[in-house]
Amino acid sequence: MSPTPVTNRGFGPARHAELALLLEVAGTPKPGNVDRRRDLSDLHFEHFLTGAVGAAKGLRLAESGTSVGEAFETAVAGMSKQGGGNTQFGCLLLLVPLVRAATAGDLSPDGAAAVVESTTVDDAVNFYRAFEHVNVAVGEVPDDASDLDVRHGGDAESALRDRDFSLYDVMELSADRDANAREWTGGFDRTFRAADAILVDDGPVTDRVARAFLDLLAEEPDTLVVTNHGESVARDVMDRAAAVSNLDEAEELAETFVTEGINPGTTADIACAATFVALERGVPL
Amino acid sequence: MSPTPVTNRGFGPARHAELALLLEVAGTPKPGNVDRRRDLSDLHFEHFLTGAVGAAKGLRLAESGTSVGEAFETAVAGMSKQGGGNTQFGCLLLLVPLVRAATAGDLSPDGAAAVVESTTVDDAVNFYRAFEHVNVAVGEVPDDASDLDVRHGGDAESALRDRDFSLYDVMELSADRDANAREWTGGFDRTFRAADAILVDDGPVTDRVARAFLDLLAEEPDTLVVTNHGESVARDVMDRAAAVSNLDEAEELAETFVTEGINPGTTADIACAATFVALERGVPL
Repeated sequence: MSPTPVTNRGFGPARHAELALLLEVAGTPKPGNVDRRRDLSDLHFEHFLTGAVGAAKGLRLAESGTSVGEAFETAVAGMSKQGGGNTQFGCLLLLVPLVRAATAGDLSPDGAAAVVESTTVDDAVNFYRAFEHVNVAVGEVPDDASDLDVRHGGDAESALRDRDFSLYDVMELSADRDANAREWTGGFDRTFRAADAILVDDGPVTDRVARAFLDLLAEEPDTLVVTNHGESVARDVMDRAAAVSNLDEAEELAETFVTEGINPGTTADIACAATFVALERGVPL
Repeated sequence: MSPTPVTNRGFGPARHAELALLLEVAGTPKPGNVDRRRDLSDLHFEHFLTGAVGAAKGLRLAESGTSVGEAFETAVAGMSKQGGGNTQFGCLLLLVPLVRAATAGDLSPDGAAAVVESTTVDDAVNFYRAFEHVNVAVGEVPDDASDLDVRHGGDAESALRDRDFSLYDVMELSADRDANAREWTGGFDRTFRAADAILVDDGPVTDRVARAFLDLLAEEPDTLVVTNHGESVARDVMDRAAAVSNLDEAEELAETFVTEGINPGTTADIACAATFVALERGVPL
């Protein structure tokens, strides 16, 4: 007899966040991303497993009440202890405030908004320092904010303090061109909607994650694809994702995107955050 | 430019043990076992990911000096919070004393032997209680030790106390027919040899783990296969593993074993323990 799936695991939010990192990368096919069946040339499945375990310390800090910025920087530092480079920077940017919201007992759009809106300049400084631990693909900043380019790392501290910019303010600055920043400033709207889809779906959680990823990919241009290939390629990626009607059909797209170097990593970040919310709400495993 | 693989991750033994659980199940092909490419009918990759995260609390206890038995029971209880059933009971039986040895600064055959030889009757009681958290396939016990059948769970406590049996004594009782018990009573000989093989091998760690698994499988009859199918089938499995000379050839064997219901799970336990030792010794990731 097969054991009954478990919905109440007794895991705290930090362990659910770590598990979300693992289930997200295991979800397959997630066209263009590392998944259970595919590696990219220098970025392998085992780098993501190592990144998830390394991030756990920072996630635990978030659960125990440490500030969003410090928990995030610690998580990124731990994540980067593998040779693949940036595996889960964007996932962690979404997970850390969600872990805080869950710990505060209000894992909802309002609860998540309350967490991010209460971030400070110190959180922003930690966020900039996190870029010193790992290379992250980023877009251009507006001319009037070049002192806030994340590529300055911790050197941006004085600019942040001069402008009195909280981490929320930093996210607002790039919300028009970065889907993760838009989650921060928009009550994690896509995250919660994708979590609902995962919860009402059926089958293995990794299949549900893959289907949620495809729906998200068809919905908006992926930020990382825009950064690397421009807006029109990102629009084309959306259309191609929308044309896929099930996971079998997505297998072919997965092969094609890897060949073409299309890596919709930001969409995977949101799928990961949605998986966390679904785990907290009792998706069976 | 591809980042440099990391050898010193700054992970403690508990995190390396959790990572070993993940890298072991990701290693592919591991004929007859769940791996990155294959699920069994009721036992899926995602159950192992969940089991690894669930076990982390018990592994952390081992790192912080909690007794082997209590840490093991806690790890098994956490591991079992998923619907696949027994995912990593045997792995944890090997990992917990190895984590203790690593924490004591002597992760060697002598250091591991010192840990297991100092186990007590209380550790044995915890071990028996662990069987109440999850169904574990076990062989028959000798007629003169039927009061020590693990299927008694915590009810065996009085028999253990009457006989003054430590957990080490329990392992000695089944060392002739259980390869994991033999690791306990033999200085983790196969574990340390397989770890050396993983360290001198090259390529992704998950490939190294798969090759170490195949070598272990060719070396001795797998205990779980003996339990489920008898000694002669287990001998045949050894021969078929020995006939495989690389991972490509092992793909076919992996398909065949799954079809035949051959699940060499004990060999996977030892491969997992070896992966932990290799991580502690700086295998690059």
